[in-house]
Amino acid sequence: MPGEFALIDRIRARARRRPDVAVGIGDDAAVLRLPPGHELVVTSDTLVAGVHFPLETAAADLGWKALAVNLSDLAAMAAAPAWCTLALTLPEADAGFVEAFLDGFLELADAHDVSLVGGDTTSGPLSITVTAHGLVPAGAALRRDGARVGDEVWVTGTLGDAAGALSQWRARGPASAKLRYRLDRPTPRVAAGLALRGLATAGIDLSDGLAADLGHVMRASGRGARIDLGRLPTSRTLADHFEETQRWPLQLSGGDDYELCFTAPPAAAFAIEQALAACDTAATVIGQVQAGEGLAFVTPEGEDYVPARAGFQHFQGVH
Amino acid sequence: MPGEFALIDRIRARARRRPDVAVGIGDDAAVLRLPPGHELVVTSDTLVAGVHFPLETAAADLGWKALAVNLSDLAAMAAAPAWCTLALTLPEADAGFVEAFLDGFLELADAHDVSLVGGDTTSGPLSITVTAHGLVPAGAALRRDGARVGDEVWVTGTLGDAAGALSQWRARGPASAKLRYRLDRPTPRVAAGLALRGLATAGIDLSDGLAADLGHVMRASGRGARIDLGRLPTSRTLADHFEETQRWPLQLSGGDDYELCFTAPPAAAFAIEQALAACDTAATVIGQVQAGEGLAFVTPEGEDYVPARAGFQHFQGVH
Repeated sequence: MPGEFALIDRIRARARRRPDVAVGIGDDAAVLRLPPGHELVVTSDTLVAGVHFPLETAAADLGWKALAVNLSDLAAMAAAPAWCTLALTLPEADAGFVEAFLDGFLELADAHDVSLVGGDTTSGPLSITVTAHGLVPAGAALRRDGARVGDEVWVTGTLGDAAGALSQWRARGPASAKLRYRLDRPTPRVAAGLALRGLATAGIDLSDGLAADLGHVMRASGRGARIDLGRLPTSRTLADHFEETQRWPLQLSGGDDYELCFTAPPAAAFAIEQALAACDTAATVIGQVQAGEGLAFVTPEGEDYVPARAGFQHFQGVH
Repeated sequence: MPGEFALIDRIRARARRRPDVAVGIGDDAAVLRLPPGHELVVTSDTLVAGVHFPLETAAADLGWKALAVNLSDLAAMAAAPAWCTLALTLPEADAGFVEAFLDGFLELADAHDVSLVGGDTTSGPLSITVTAHGLVPAGAALRRDGARVGDEVWVTGTLGDAAGALSQWRARGPASAKLRYRLDRPTPRVAAGLALRGLATAGIDLSDGLAADLGHVMRASGRGARIDLGRLPTSRTLADHFEETQRWPLQLSGGDDYELCFTAPPAAAFAIEQALAACDTAATVIGQVQAGEGLAFVTPEGEDYVPARAGFQHFQGVH
């Protein structure tokens, strides 16, 4: 079984290197060159075995997801991904696990021209922390605090698929492979994030569920929002497996969607549709920003609806 | 007990913010401004409970050390620390633990003008991953691959103190508080790293022990080195607790020193002494770079000495 340095050599051999990486894996730290006029965007997310993913999750899916959740945060800031570090804690130096993990991780990294430039490998309970770095022209980052009264609330893709898969997994009954794929291989909406520069007023990625994450945007913006449950974008697969009233908790509180939720004035709607169509990303208006605070969810029958819980929070016994 | 968002609010309230932080804690990612003409230096290190520190280590010491080991990597690159992210995985949301952890973490961060700009809090077995970001003028980073034949090999401070503390802790016998402090509160040699810009030819920080870490430098440089064991800088406390032949394994293979080891031509020696004296850092010449490969350790009696093992590697049952 290889030791730590052999693992690092193996990771280094497989990682591609962008021309703006002056020093990559193999020194005390990486040295990276930013283009003039750009700001650095940094995010860090951890996945812990048994907390963020079922223990039997395939190593390649884990590798993909560990990077995807970070690229999703960069997308929400309208940043172009550039570099990442990987801190990998493993119970034992299982070379097969590491190779499979890298298969998924580097497949996504290569697809977005992200260089793995450093990190750490340690022994301990399975856990992965990725720190991802992106670039935005100075001042162009999409923040949470810019939503204005009258803006429309949009989401990309469809909501609730990953939560549907998790619900099926927990019930140990019939499971949809399509839903499970959405849980294991989320699509970070990188191109959509870039396309929204100059069009959206505020944005966030949906990791903890729409109710919690849109709540963050509205609190940061000092506004509220009204969401029409009848307009929530829903995959046919989710609709095949869950009745409408079963779907709402998955779509509002389930988490793990990694879609973007953003706000924009109605006058920008056509430009947004064009820009997102150019990167093959579907998006749907689901409500409006309004004065005041808090979120109101309204059923197709016009009744108020209160989500069961405020999204996925750690340390509260919800997992 | 607070939930995840309450913890994040608490961390945000205590973190200082440099003027070059455009967006700090509380959005999907941080947005940071680099000065013109500089490169970004990035490093990421993980500490796992029971692997990198005894389980009963005080939370404030853990906070200090989790940041210190990363600042030490920046120092080894001659980078000025600027920002960091903190991924904190905790078995439970223990507010007292987090406050004490932040006491140590932010004490060191504030001392080096480092802003905590983001991260993640998750539930799981105790583990901490810090990613630290520093700045160097373009091309000024100190790398591992620049050592030349005839260069002198230097180390800052004294070697073996932390390993001495760990040895005492394992033996469950008498323990020196001074040695233990060096294990729990290592001093990242940030000012020394900056002072070595333009003077040192190669550098590394001593995290895994001199034999392993100097070995990395020599391999990267395609050179070898001869080290005189009689010249290893030794604290009086270590000498009080361990005989000379007991000390060598601690000093060569013990790890956790977080001193800098660097190479420089003899003509630079006076300038180095001046520069390091100006930042109150002791440094000692312990040997020379030579042609060929590998490390030779020579006792004061002129005999060859082979270190017991090649430093601290995870996944090899050495801890």
